[in-house]
Amino acid sequence: MKAVVLRIGHRYVRDYRVTTHVALVARAFGAEKMLVVNSEDEIKKSIKAVNERWGGDFEVEEVSNWKSVLKDWKSSGNKIVHLTMYGISVDDAIDDIKEEKKDLLVVIGAEKVPRDIFDMSDYNISIGNQPHSEIAALAIFLDRLFRGKQLKRNFNGSMNIVPSAKGKVVKTMM
Amino acid sequence: MKAVVLRIGHRYVRDYRVTTHVALVARAFGAEKMLVVNSEDEIKKSIKAVNERWGGDFEVEEVSNWKSVLKDWKSSGNKIVHLTMYGISVDDAIDDIKEEKKDLLVVIGAEKVPRDIFDMSDYNISIGNQPHSEIAALAIFLDRLFRGKQLKRNFNGSMNIVPSAKGKVVKTMM
Repeated sequence: MKAVVLRIGHRYVRDYRVTTHVALVARAFGAEKMLVVNSEDEIKKSIKAVNERWGGDFEVEEVSNWKSVLKDWKSSGNKIVHLTMYGISVDDAIDDIKEEKKDLLVVIGAEKVPRDIFDMSDYNISIGNQPHSEIAALAIFLDRLFRGKQLKRNFNGSMNIVPSAKGKVVKTMM
Repeated sequence: MKAVVLRIGHRYVRDYRVTTHVALVARAFGAEKMLVVNSEDEIKKSIKAVNERWGGDFEVEEVSNWKSVLKDWKSSGNKIVHLTMYGISVDDAIDDIKEEKKDLLVVIGAEKVPRDIFDMSDYNISIGNQPHSEIAALAIFLDRLFRGKQLKRNFNGSMNIVPSAKGKVVKTMM
């Protein structure tokens, strides 16, 4: 079961740091790729630099139209999960989503989300029904999907952290 | 077991949106309060507006010196948890932390964190050993601490979302 993140509603410059956090979370929590409309090249570059140092092959891909991404994804028979505070609780829906055994497009909005997204998604899922953060929502969703195992994944990076009680211990492959 | 979040390293203006996400996550995931050094008044105001609409009494408090917050917290006998990618994995440490049955100060840094924080903390905890986001780290930590129950908490707000598969359903108390 693969997960690809689609970040919609990204506002140039204004959302730069938040969308970078979304990409880093997608990568660290086990997604394959983030699709984003109209974003800064720097996001792509900074994720590439993270891969070079810390491993893995997570990609950021610029797309021109989110609606056609949703349509293509739907017609391939895979599933679309939209994270929204208005949706069904993740803990009430995650087993059904897993049972589908399909690849997932996980849609993450910025402040306002077009109505179409609710209609086109197979699942509208809330991570609690309080306003918070799309970054946190993505992390919790992927954590539930992969049952926390993503946190122990080996990225085979040239740098690897050795978990430590008090310091910063990093193994560097020469 | 209460959790208070201490946000350190906040950079005026630059970190405004990220620190706002930290505050919203702290509130939605069951912390009592966020302490922050040198932040914008708007953060306090926007959280107040969220409480008025969506309930609860989560607070943002400006503090002048994080070191004295850590010292006071330590001398009260409560515990300090610092979230860092260099720490011990949350899933290897969360049971020990819960067994302490103490209130927790959860320290969340921005990019670089002073060495003192590692030394003064009782636990340096990683949410995976990959770089990602302090917003995601806080969400996962509080989710593990409160075992996901925080997501179903009733905030008794004047507005309440009714989880819905397709739409936005909000009950408003008149």
